[in-house]
Amino acid sequence: MQKVRLEQGNLFSERIGSHGIKNLEFFAWDKKIKEIIKKIKQESKKEEIGWPNLPFEEEEIREISKFTKTERKKWKNILLLGIGGSALGTAAIQEALQKSETKNLIILDNVDPDFFTQKLADLNWEKTLVIVISKSGTTPETMAQFYLIEEILKHEIKKGYQNQIIAITDDKEGELKKIAENKNYKQFVIPKNVGGRFSVLSSVGLVPAALLGADISSLCEGARTMQEDCFKEDLRENPAALLAVSAYLMDRKKGKRKQVFLPYSNQLTGFTEWYAQLLSESIGKNEETGLTPIKALGTTDQHSQLQLWSEGPNDKVFTFLEIENFQNNIPLPYFENKALDYLSGKSLNELIRAAKQGTELALAKKSRPNQTISIPKLNESSLGQLFYLFEMQIAILGKLYEINPYNQPGVELGKKITKKIMLGISL
Amino acid sequence: MQKVRLEQGNLFSERIGSHGIKNLEFFAWDKKIKEIIKKIKQESKKEEIGWPNLPFEEEEIREISKFTKTERKKWKNILLLGIGGSALGTAAIQEALQKSETKNLIILDNVDPDFFTQKLADLNWEKTLVIVISKSGTTPETMAQFYLIEEILKHEIKKGYQNQIIAITDDKEGELKKIAENKNYKQFVIPKNVGGRFSVLSSVGLVPAALLGADISSLCEGARTMQEDCFKEDLRENPAALLAVSAYLMDRKKGKRKQVFLPYSNQLTGFTEWYAQLLSESIGKNEETGLTPIKALGTTDQHSQLQLWSEGPNDKVFTFLEIENFQNNIPLPYFENKALDYLSGKSLNELIRAAKQGTELALAKKSRPNQTISIPKLNESSLGQLFYLFEMQIAILGKLYEINPYNQPGVELGKKITKKIMLGISL
Repeated sequence: MQKVRLEQGNLFSERIGSHGIKNLEFFAWDKKIKEIIKKIKQESKKEEIGWPNLPFEEEEIREISKFTKTERKKWKNILLLGIGGSALGTAAIQEALQKSETKNLIILDNVDPDFFTQKLADLNWEKTLVIVISKSGTTPETMAQFYLIEEILKHEIKKGYQNQIIAITDDKEGELKKIAENKNYKQFVIPKNVGGRFSVLSSVGLVPAALLGADISSLCEGARTMQEDCFKEDLRENPAALLAVSAYLMDRKKGKRKQVFLPYSNQLTGFTEWYAQLLSESIGKNEETGLTPIKALGTTDQHSQLQLWSEGPNDKVFTFLEIENFQNNIPLPYFENKALDYLSGKSLNELIRAAKQGTELALAKKSRPNQTISIPKLNESSLGQLFYLFEMQIAILGKLYEINPYNQPGVELGKKITKKIMLGISL
Repeated sequence: MQKVRLEQGNLFSERIGSHGIKNLEFFAWDKKIKEIIKKIKQESKKEEIGWPNLPFEEEEIREISKFTKTERKKWKNILLLGIGGSALGTAAIQEALQKSETKNLIILDNVDPDFFTQKLADLNWEKTLVIVISKSGTTPETMAQFYLIEEILKHEIKKGYQNQIIAITDDKEGELKKIAENKNYKQFVIPKNVGGRFSVLSSVGLVPAALLGADISSLCEGARTMQEDCFKEDLRENPAALLAVSAYLMDRKKGKRKQVFLPYSNQLTGFTEWYAQLLSESIGKNEETGLTPIKALGTTDQHSQLQLWSEGPNDKVFTFLEIENFQNNIPLPYFENKALDYLSGKSLNELIRAAKQGTELALAKKSRPNQTISIPKLNESSLGQLFYLFEMQIAILGKLYEINPYNQPGVELGKKITKKIMLGISL
């Protein structure tokens, strides 16, 4: 299996001067990392946290594959109802793997009434499978849409509409569990000890992925390979620990709390959204603790944000993601005019690679810390590796900051006020 | 004409305590604003800057409308080659107005070889109009793609392929101008004194918009109405000045340099991208001067970033954009279960509005500064108002920070290194 690789040279003071981390300072964290990795392994063994062992069993993958193999032939459209962690993993998989060419995946991750209307216009309901994802079944956005869609299905399909609904929810309790039991919908389980933003390698991500035609065995195999590296107790050998310690030190020692996530691949924009949630919600916990993700795309954002990045305040860390081998090779023709002569006989592939290197070196020359994750080829295996790598980075960061990366108490107040407004209670 | 409205109460200390601006402190800038507005009007009158008077003439709009009226009937696909300011305005217009239902707009704003391949797969070239946009004609991404597309068109269409190409470029010089002259392509002009990110109301945005079926007269009328307000010398009456002074003081007095741009409408995600470029490149000029845009979407990002926003470091200013009247009204059914009973008989429209208000109030209770721009209805007129409002905010901010908002010297170094890499020159 080809592994993704991490290159961090441009984070260090040898390359970028006083804005960089000192080598000694960095590797002084080796002992702390040993403790942290041991602790995470323990928590995972005791099942206090569930995600490090996802997917739990070979059997689970087989069960999903078996179900989806027959099911996927029946449907042209997959309509996914979910928001946040219930949607972002699937969106990342769809965009990265582009398996949706044969299937039309529609993700309703907002309650904008015009978006809702546009997305469902002219949908052939007889060819549509609905997946509703919510652990509690009380997420208002998802459930409001689910009730609407259920009504439409009953009306359009009548007998047997139940066969077009899959519920992915809690094993035992919650509103969606009750509904699924009452109406006899096909169910998959979100494990209790796995939170939404860490759930992509559970049924939450795997069922939709398999329905789209992704090879979920290979996705999970990629994750497992990365798990081996991320469970290593030696900082130098553990890519997740390297990512975590550098982000932590760049914040605490260099005051850089903005994390620019910059893939040079349109197919990784969904992955960027997935990572932005993971980083924001897991680490943003108090006035002193929080890293802000900046979502970007190369080369496009070189023409949109690079001016700020390279000459504005030096308060950001840049993570490039680079695809080494695209699926297509696009050679360029001969350029007749002098100003563009340097492109003659090259390829789009060379241009995007050189643009990334140029940006990387220019940022380093201006003392802006950056690192690169190289992806040999974008496929199920490398995507599985990336999911696991960043989940583990966040888990380690949680320990470094001594905060709980698995909760989100800060969103409750807004929810309460929203409910009061809906009930007409004066505030 | 219905005007967009600005509500800034939650930026002030009366509402959010010490993280807010004091009223007196804010309006002490009244005198400075008078000077700045006078200066901008002068610069614009002397044509040192061109964008404040866009579109220059009624006649220009008529000319574009006349050309596009016959042209748009001929084509099913509009293929736009451009990057940064040459693409973001059109993307914003397309997404906001959704005129593309009858036309297929493809924007090639990246050189990812797989993206390039996917976007062009199965394209009917006989039904495709190509628009290439570059002032200098040396933007490598755009020109590389243009040479490729020109080859394809020659091969697929043969005789008369020239009629399927429109060049939007400089009036007199540059590589693209030369090509367009030599090959007799239809041309539109990018005015010399208008930079890419301020060009949406020139031919750069208007020609594609009109081809998509947007009412560009109404778009420009919206901009003109906003110009009247934005040329007022009284801070209290000038919405762009209110936006500029508050962003400036939130940075300089409160250390908040992150600007979260948060529309509650999927159709405004393109507008967010447009604004992110405008803010980043115009203001990000030195170690002490730069505001970082955070692109977001409500309610979706309440499930992705709100935890960080509400409990993490208080270093952000939030700008909500709210649509008062969506095109569709989606009533919700009766909810059988108790936990969701509060949604019964309401609508998706009420839910998205309450979610926005809940988030706004929760942020204010946690002393997080926020403001709201209310848009009566999303259409050509309101979109024109929004473009002008934010362009003027940025122009005023440039004067407040005493930097030049119209250049981007920081992107040159990366370009030079990229060119060297392409030429195989050792670095």
